[in-house]
Amino acid sequence: MSEINIKDIAKICGVGVSTVSRAINNHPDVNPETKEKILKVIRENHYVPNNSARNLKRSDSNTIAVLVKGVSNTFFTEMIETIQNEIKKHNYSMVLHRVEFDEDEVDVALELVKEKRLRGIIFLGGYFVHSEEKLKRLKVPFVLSTAGSISKVYNRDDYSSVSVDDMEESRKMTQYLIDLGHRKIALIATRESDVSVGKLRIDGYRKALNDNNIKIEKSLILHMDPNIEEFSSESGYKAMKDFLDEGKKCTAVFAISDTVAFGAIRAIYDSGLTVPGDISVAGFDGIKAGEFYIPSLTTIKQPIDEISRATSDILFEIINGSSGHRHEIYPGSFIERESTDRLSSSK
Amino acid sequence: MSEINIKDIAKICGVGVSTVSRAINNHPDVNPETKEKILKVIRENHYVPNNSARNLKRSDSNTIAVLVKGVSNTFFTEMIETIQNEIKKHNYSMVLHRVEFDEDEVDVALELVKEKRLRGIIFLGGYFVHSEEKLKRLKVPFVLSTAGSISKVYNRDDYSSVSVDDMEESRKMTQYLIDLGHRKIALIATRESDVSVGKLRIDGYRKALNDNNIKIEKSLILHMDPNIEEFSSESGYKAMKDFLDEGKKCTAVFAISDTVAFGAIRAIYDSGLTVPGDISVAGFDGIKAGEFYIPSLTTIKQPIDEISRATSDILFEIINGSSGHRHEIYPGSFIERESTDRLSSSK
Repeated sequence: MSEINIKDIAKICGVGVSTVSRAINNHPDVNPETKEKILKVIRENHYVPNNSARNLKRSDSNTIAVLVKGVSNTFFTEMIETIQNEIKKHNYSMVLHRVEFDEDEVDVALELVKEKRLRGIIFLGGYFVHSEEKLKRLKVPFVLSTAGSISKVYNRDDYSSVSVDDMEESRKMTQYLIDLGHRKIALIATRESDVSVGKLRIDGYRKALNDNNIKIEKSLILHMDPNIEEFSSESGYKAMKDFLDEGKKCTAVFAISDTVAFGAIRAIYDSGLTVPGDISVAGFDGIKAGEFYIPSLTTIKQPIDEISRATSDILFEIINGSSGHRHEIYPGSFIERESTDRLSSSK
Repeated sequence: MSEINIKDIAKICGVGVSTVSRAINNHPDVNPETKEKILKVIRENHYVPNNSARNLKRSDSNTIAVLVKGVSNTFFTEMIETIQNEIKKHNYSMVLHRVEFDEDEVDVALELVKEKRLRGIIFLGGYFVHSEEKLKRLKVPFVLSTAGSISKVYNRDDYSSVSVDDMEESRKMTQYLIDLGHRKIALIATRESDVSVGKLRIDGYRKALNDNNIKIEKSLILHMDPNIEEFSSESGYKAMKDFLDEGKKCTAVFAISDTVAFGAIRAIYDSGLTVPGDISVAGFDGIKAGEFYIPSLTTIKQPIDEISRATSDILFEIINGSSGHRHEIYPGSFIERESTDRLSSSK
């Protein structure tokens, strides 16, 4: 009788394994009737949740670490709010750790695992490049959230990820600018060595230009200064200001994040030009500040709530043994606002 | 010999108690020579740091909780970065907890104390109203950081605080707007029931008007909607938009925080008016985004680094038994940018 496992319970109840896991863990997203039924089946079958799950309940340290790289990107602030609520619902606590932009997040994680007997780790954000050997030393499950799909680098069975399709969303935004008549489109990208999110967004930009037979000009791909915090308004300002100060020209700019776009718009303005009158500017992320900025910002909105919720759902399912690692992609939504406009014939 | 205490060590070394405490705790802000001398005196005198300090070293849970109310205020994001670094330097770890804007932060703290055997708590932010009886149940030392001076409510020996002089800084900003010729100055304040930071900033505004024999008009004090997250751009937008939609007039607005000011500027713009052409707008806090906003924002900059560092210094000195509770006030700095202008004679 004690041989019965979570899959059997799910089969008896006619629900998925993850629903059973949610019911066991008191997750609010389960229909109360379904939950009651599941708990009844569990009792009747004397099912005992597996060891790791039970140990969790006994241990002091029901702790999940959330590691965020960089502090200037408001996008993460919004994500953390949802993730924290999800972790709380599972009666776990969250240790939030901000990783300096030039610090190694896996080193930080390894230290935290040692100190805190963590149950899982969530890495937030876009610049994740580590040796597989090093990641293996983490020993606890981890989920990369909005860190792009890095399938070429790691074995996809060893970690989970949740993100938008960075390449495709970036292609769509570039295509939108092309549809407005723009041909000289600058891209403000991450540092040149970036092989994660930044790379994927460059690939999307390149694809859109190729699809439209527009020549890719290297001088229009502006890499952020590696000495300035990435994804900050400062870095966007510097990249754009240098470009304009060198006398280079473009009629549209696609910035890799909204915060970077704010810096770029300010740099355009400080050069005596207007947005979108002289140069259209688009961002990526869809943070709230973009609504209140003048001009309000055209952007790709990442579904922050869905991504945050999926991130913690996956992590808890792995912790509870009810699921293996998996990779989820969410669609972004395109938001057209004031900062972009049709190319006027005078340009 | 073992009767010697930290004050004796300080006297022998000719330094302050807090310097000795820093040397013991490996704080980097101590001159290396001084540190060596102190440690030598400690060894020679067989001084043993007091029990609570030694217990800390032995315990698993060298944890400080930082509780932040609300997530939309970027000001705190900037503070947390410094506080985290300070906590790390002391070999403590930080549990960062975001408190929903309608949640009770002391209830959250009481729960954390129970779960985590915390050593201390830092409350960040401005809306701190709790019964003294309840605060006493916290049992661990706490510091209110940028939460205003609430001396009338609590016994000042029972807690520490670090902040700017909210009333005086607010008076200065209002005086600046008066000096520009403005008489109809709206204030976007917190909810009406606020008796902490929001109240102090209203008092400063009132004082400046009184000093200049300008009648205080109740209709110019806009309280944020209690159903919208406080200190968010949304709440500033709503307050300003409602005011203008009702046909009310002002020539300047002083918003209680920079994020609120961004919302107010956007509302003015959406009503077909310009900033500062029609209405001057000033903020409070000095967050980075104010530099990149168009128009850039006139504000009072709180010394984020100094306040953050003082907050953790005080907390660790109390934990180490080298100091009692104390209250520190830091001066803000006035930053004039594009969002404010002299009242034109046509208004």
